[in-house]
Amino acid sequence: MPADRLRVAFLGPPASFSHQAAAESFDKTDAELIPHVSFADAFTAVQQQAADYAVIPFENSTNGSVVQTLDLLADRNALYKDVKVCGEYYLTVHHCLLVRKGTYPAGWAGYDGSITKLYTHPQAWGQCENLLSQHFKGIERQDVSSTSKAAEIVAKETGERGAAIASKFAAEYHGVDVLKENIEDRADNTTRFLILRNVLAERSALLEFEKPNAPAAVITLKTLVSFAIDHSLPGALANALLIFKNHCLNLTSINTRPSLKRAWQYIFFVECGRTPSDGNEEAVLKALDDLRHATEFCRDWGTWKDQLGGSIA
Amino acid sequence: MPADRLRVAFLGPPASFSHQAAAESFDKTDAELIPHVSFADAFTAVQQQAADYAVIPFENSTNGSVVQTLDLLADRNALYKDVKVCGEYYLTVHHCLLVRKGTYPAGWAGYDGSITKLYTHPQAWGQCENLLSQHFKGIERQDVSSTSKAAEIVAKETGERGAAIASKFAAEYHGVDVLKENIEDRADNTTRFLILRNVLAERSALLEFEKPNAPAAVITLKTLVSFAIDHSLPGALANALLIFKNHCLNLTSINTRPSLKRAWQYIFFVECGRTPSDGNEEAVLKALDDLRHATEFCRDWGTWKDQLGGSIA
Repeated sequence: MPADRLRVAFLGPPASFSHQAAAESFDKTDAELIPHVSFADAFTAVQQQAADYAVIPFENSTNGSVVQTLDLLADRNALYKDVKVCGEYYLTVHHCLLVRKGTYPAGWAGYDGSITKLYTHPQAWGQCENLLSQHFKGIERQDVSSTSKAAEIVAKETGERGAAIASKFAAEYHGVDVLKENIEDRADNTTRFLILRNVLAERSALLEFEKPNAPAAVITLKTLVSFAIDHSLPGALANALLIFKNHCLNLTSINTRPSLKRAWQYIFFVECGRTPSDGNEEAVLKALDDLRHATEFCRDWGTWKDQLGGSIA
Repeated sequence: MPADRLRVAFLGPPASFSHQAAAESFDKTDAELIPHVSFADAFTAVQQQAADYAVIPFENSTNGSVVQTLDLLADRNALYKDVKVCGEYYLTVHHCLLVRKGTYPAGWAGYDGSITKLYTHPQAWGQCENLLSQHFKGIERQDVSSTSKAAEIVAKETGERGAAIASKFAAEYHGVDVLKENIEDRADNTTRFLILRNVLAERSALLEFEKPNAPAAVITLKTLVSFAIDHSLPGALANALLIFKNHCLNLTSINTRPSLKRAWQYIFFVECGRTPSDGNEEAVLKALDDLRHATEFCRDWGTWKDQLGGSIA
């Protein structure tokens, strides 16, 4: 392993959706992808420069925001002060029905109904209800800790006729057969991942994360900001949000988490977007400057290129 | 049972925290409190007037918003069109260590270390870490589906020396002893519940939910509004939020959930507050009117008296 190989932390066991997002985001590089069992471990790896980057789920188009990520971005104990967002990646979540290698040589067309047990992460059952209710009614379902784990269990089976619901990526990783592809009910179920780096590390400043073939004219820059307001001041939140509008920055997402300092006080997370062709290079800097005066604290989590290729609000 | 007895739906098994919130909210009435196994069941009971009210958790001061409730308030399929919020209730979450009746007559002072197994809901372990690490290091922990269930298991024990982490309310309900009270690490861990009613039902229009002994001068009225914006219009969200400020309404909370119509489009939930003594009786109506012009849809979820007794933002 060359000493200068990039190290990318991802969440979950090998072959998780975060692993797939990391593999696809860094497919042009010779990066080493390293599993991390918790969100906090991945953030810590970047803060301590044990990893150059981390790939972390931020929101899902069906399930909404990932609370664990927001709680780490809240950074209530200033553990991750050098961590910034430098990119994002959209991964469409496709599930497959996976079986041990060679068990069904005729494929789905020749499937004889002999599967006796199904394995997957609890969240995935509900995402594949159409197929399950049509072909697997009454078949035993076993919850496991990840879809990747489900694929691993099926790979190691000997006598049983089990099947796993997991990604094609997990099938390749664990060496099992794809009996049926794209078995999810919603074709547009997508998770957005954030790519984190340490702002003090020069070697992670070099990569650019951008949508391949996106015309420059439609590129949008997104910025993530967290802040807290003085809740005793009427209108404090509206005033803070107005600042973005005053600088012609579109709000593209807003989230809140409890401050944990005092009940019913919040940390706000706002993403805003701008089109560089608007010529408003200074807009984010000016908005942050205004925000510092209108908030109790305010943190710039960085700016990156929108991978959807357009503003959404 | 008199035919005109009020029926109050609560979430969870008997002796859940929702049950306690319902019992305390309706302690001046002769209401019948009815358990409902899912959030959707409780909403449906109100919509179909099988229940006069429902008591539903909305947010916790430590864990944040309750996503299942927001998803029902999103009401994407217009299933709950007559449901409105008519009140709220703040319940401080106190945990106790519960044991079978009579097992430790000398109480906590005389506790001899003989408990061999602990039962509670997975979330409660982390809320009582101080006591657990000091007195129950290495003792087997069994996850159960609710704190109330944990108390029930201990109540039915025969030979074992088990203990449950659950509320005093659950102890009374299941007839077990409180070995130690208030074992939670954070004394201020509080859940806010919403009280729902059917706007078409006259008999649920009579009750007023207010903080006992609150001076009229500090009463705040809160209103919950949900809306969606046209994401293709730059500044649409900022414009919608500005409307509250324009009518001197303070934003007290903001939440978002995926619209599920198209990826990365959201339903927004905004609570705003006003002090009636300000003389701005029409502010909410005017704001809603403006919002209807600035949004794709906008729904008034009702107005009720703030039980904290003051504006928070």
